[in-house]
Amino acid sequence: MSDKKLQIIPLGGLGEFGMNSMAVRYNDDIIVLDAGMMFPDAELLGVDIVTPDFTYLEQNADKVRGVVLTHGHEDHIGGVPFLLAQLNVPVYGTAFTLALVERRLEEHQMLDKAKLKIVKPGEKLELGPFSIEFVHVTHSIVQCVALAITTPLGIIIHTGDFKVDPTPTDNELFDLHTLAAYGKRGVLLLMSDSTNVDRPGYTESERAVGPRLEDLFVRAPRRLVISCFSSSIHRLQQILDLADEYGRKVAFLGRSMLATTEIAHDLGLLTIPNGILLRPQDIMQSVPNKTVTVVSGTQGEPMSAMSRVAVDNHKSLSIEPGDMVALSARIIPGNEKAIYRMMNHLARRGADVVYGSMNPPIHVSGHGSSEELRLVLNLVRPKYFVPIHGEYRQMAKHAQLAQHLSHWGLEGTFVLESGDTLEIDEAGARRGEQITVGRVCIDSGTLDEVVEDMVIRDRRHLSEDGFVLPIIAINKHTGKPEGLPEIVSRGFMSMEESSSVLQEARQIVLKTLDSSSPEERGDWGVMQEKIRADLKRYLTKQTSRRPLIMPVILEV
Amino acid sequence: MSDKKLQIIPLGGLGEFGMNSMAVRYNDDIIVLDAGMMFPDAELLGVDIVTPDFTYLEQNADKVRGVVLTHGHEDHIGGVPFLLAQLNVPVYGTAFTLALVERRLEEHQMLDKAKLKIVKPGEKLELGPFSIEFVHVTHSIVQCVALAITTPLGIIIHTGDFKVDPTPTDNELFDLHTLAAYGKRGVLLLMSDSTNVDRPGYTESERAVGPRLEDLFVRAPRRLVISCFSSSIHRLQQILDLADEYGRKVAFLGRSMLATTEIAHDLGLLTIPNGILLRPQDIMQSVPNKTVTVVSGTQGEPMSAMSRVAVDNHKSLSIEPGDMVALSARIIPGNEKAIYRMMNHLARRGADVVYGSMNPPIHVSGHGSSEELRLVLNLVRPKYFVPIHGEYRQMAKHAQLAQHLSHWGLEGTFVLESGDTLEIDEAGARRGEQITVGRVCIDSGTLDEVVEDMVIRDRRHLSEDGFVLPIIAINKHTGKPEGLPEIVSRGFMSMEESSSVLQEARQIVLKTLDSSSPEERGDWGVMQEKIRADLKRYLTKQTSRRPLIMPVILEV
Repeated sequence: MSDKKLQIIPLGGLGEFGMNSMAVRYNDDIIVLDAGMMFPDAELLGVDIVTPDFTYLEQNADKVRGVVLTHGHEDHIGGVPFLLAQLNVPVYGTAFTLALVERRLEEHQMLDKAKLKIVKPGEKLELGPFSIEFVHVTHSIVQCVALAITTPLGIIIHTGDFKVDPTPTDNELFDLHTLAAYGKRGVLLLMSDSTNVDRPGYTESERAVGPRLEDLFVRAPRRLVISCFSSSIHRLQQILDLADEYGRKVAFLGRSMLATTEIAHDLGLLTIPNGILLRPQDIMQSVPNKTVTVVSGTQGEPMSAMSRVAVDNHKSLSIEPGDMVALSARIIPGNEKAIYRMMNHLARRGADVVYGSMNPPIHVSGHGSSEELRLVLNLVRPKYFVPIHGEYRQMAKHAQLAQHLSHWGLEGTFVLESGDTLEIDEAGARRGEQITVGRVCIDSGTLDEVVEDMVIRDRRHLSEDGFVLPIIAINKHTGKPEGLPEIVSRGFMSMEESSSVLQEARQIVLKTLDSSSPEERGDWGVMQEKIRADLKRYLTKQTSRRPLIMPVILEV
Repeated sequence: MSDKKLQIIPLGGLGEFGMNSMAVRYNDDIIVLDAGMMFPDAELLGVDIVTPDFTYLEQNADKVRGVVLTHGHEDHIGGVPFLLAQLNVPVYGTAFTLALVERRLEEHQMLDKAKLKIVKPGEKLELGPFSIEFVHVTHSIVQCVALAITTPLGIIIHTGDFKVDPTPTDNELFDLHTLAAYGKRGVLLLMSDSTNVDRPGYTESERAVGPRLEDLFVRAPRRLVISCFSSSIHRLQQILDLADEYGRKVAFLGRSMLATTEIAHDLGLLTIPNGILLRPQDIMQSVPNKTVTVVSGTQGEPMSAMSRVAVDNHKSLSIEPGDMVALSARIIPGNEKAIYRMMNHLARRGADVVYGSMNPPIHVSGHGSSEELRLVLNLVRPKYFVPIHGEYRQMAKHAQLAQHLSHWGLEGTFVLESGDTLEIDEAGARRGEQITVGRVCIDSGTLDEVVEDMVIRDRRHLSEDGFVLPIIAINKHTGKPEGLPEIVSRGFMSMEESSSVLQEARQIVLKTLDSSSPEERGDWGVMQEKIRADLKRYLTKQTSRRPLIMPVILEV
């Protein structure tokens, strides 16, 4: 029957890093798997947050049964407030994931209206024709799940983010048994995390960070300061345990660090030894080698606690010679310069700095390397495979890797990018029609400050060579220019350099006005374009710069 | 005698990556060691090249005896044309280094006036009171030297960039013997490369890249495309030799690739097997698995040959499914996104891409790791030590490393940043007075397009929230405003969003005009400032954006 059709509709995160979101549709029912955000490239000038364009969901609002979240990282949950603002559907996730979502919704004053429903790993959730089982996986955040979705056409496994950690610090193992059982029953489609497909072998266990952290506790002669992601509860637990062992008190710095440790503690996910906590305001009064301070802001974000500590602008902590500062996080591509700048400041204050490019780093990845990806493929043995979470180069490698393994009878792999879709019916799987997806650029933390592409394009143009504005006053009675055209500019050239150029430019504008026919002069739209073209030619020739030129006609 | 004084004056490259340049002064004689450039941070909007500010040399023009170059990388020679434009002194270097300088000078039409003097490794050069020996070192470029400078107060060793490669592909070994001999005689000051101080152990030999390159030749089923730095002559030689062995013809693509291979071949530094070269226009007609194409543009530079190949916009090479494309270069921090974007494009065309984060990378560093830095310190055993070439965090680590070794009697280490100076006289070494240094931002390849800091600041401001220009026409006879103020904006908000805000803003300007006293209205400077302040308050409140606001008063 042609109307029994399953559609896989990536809304974000395929072919780009971050803002993961995927719609799964069966006829008139849609579920949304994750709704993440991403931080913008430097090219998106003045943009703070990017989310997927959820127009497709809005257009099908009556069909959307809910949002199902795999885990609490921003690239999986950060878009939830923006999606709910358009479409207030129920949100399902583990307790920790939803607690982090709550925090975001609170910031947007949206918490009271939201419908958040906790699901535990191992539990099943029925949404329309979909039966969804939460399968526990290991990753750099707690309470992380893969989704096993039983549909009328077969089973879909969506891994979320994962690694196969054989020795997780909380002893909560990857539920390989459930995955294997699904594999044995037969899986229609696997969608699996491609982030680390480039890496050979296995990703190290989170437990491997322990001895490296311990080395810091042994070596630090004075204060020890460690920066890590606030959501790395396993990492924080290891630091707390070591602090207890080595007799150091622990202070947490940074808004997100304080919030997530409280959430994790309340949920029983973080064990805080008795009497070990130190209030931030007491750090400087404590014996230096009896403290460890855990600070958020690993990526050198300008207003983060760690950045402020680096430039000695934090009220609770001042770095002194001999202090040790360690970065226990990966360096996200694009953030290298900001992070190194922060490390330089810390070194200038006399700190011994320990960071990513040193060997071995005080960090392990939360994503599985190629052998782990092979293991999951072999357990699940899907009929169809769609690599997710990665740039094209990584998804292509992951598809290749699957094809090399296809001894169980893999019938097709599809490298989809956001906008592509996959259709599966009883005849098989094929690429479906393109849908309109895209990104929404948000200027600040609020919901409605969307920046349009054209505005960003203008900013980019302005950022390269500034602007030049010829201003012509027109007498509204005579229709003739009054006086000489004025020209103002900024970001173009220095005053001294530009004065003769702009003087001459005024003459160019006058000449354009004079040499135009009365008809042209009657249409100020035409005149603006002529002035723009003539000025552009002149300025390019004189200065090889290409400022934004915007003639202004003023009726007086 | 107090007037016998040696001064070490860093002009660039200390506390920052790139644009290495160092002045050494003894009373009234100055020599300049290297004159590099760097590529700007993304923050330097619209800037193409950054060079050190050579004002100190200009102010002491009569004392400068010459520029001595350690090797031909852009961060050591790229500033030469800009320095010579201010100060036409002789330039000394090895034949290959000067051939690369020649190319740059030709581009600036400066070659006929330049005084370039070739010095061979092992030779000595007398410049005023300085006797300078060129000591061969190994690095990722050929004909690279350290400088041993005999001064009236003692010997200075400046390493330039180096690693201690025990098996260089051209069998030209690091001249450890000469360094050891200086060490035995007694060295006053060592200045040594800090780039890889973070890395434990030894940097691998360039020869280690051979088997990894060979693996590509074995595995590539069709066309093989390798991107590397055009100045990596050792790397190019290895590729040529493998191509010969595996029966593939070699095509070079990219302007710099063609230029440097020709220079290296002419100087006898690159051996090109007979009949192995393939013209670029013949690549697509050749049997795919009988060719290897070597392409410049490893860093994803937008106009480079490799970038153009990636988007299928190069006349000589079109990537087809099954082609293999390898990046044989490091990823310079800051360039990750551009490089990955290029790799994504290549993967979309069906290429099998091999790049940096894969294991093992088809690349080794040209800079020595910590054990090599220790070796050089132990051989030279200087009285004073100044780490060079690195950000602060690296120079600080290098200083620490030297202090841990100081069994021979190291009397002082100094972490200098550009602007700091070191003074040495018979009483010892100490920090000297600060001198004015800085960077000069250049907008394009020409010599005189200097971008001032203020212009860059404006561009940054414009890039964040665009501009808003209130324009008020004033009747020059009555001194009163004519009609309603006009407001134009770009890069601020979309037209629809901004129209009501800007409409209201016109009223704000009117109100400011009306509520001002006649004295204020008589001074249009004051009025501009008042309008700016009132509009800024209004726009921040309404939109939380902070565009550049620039009131324009037009007399009509």
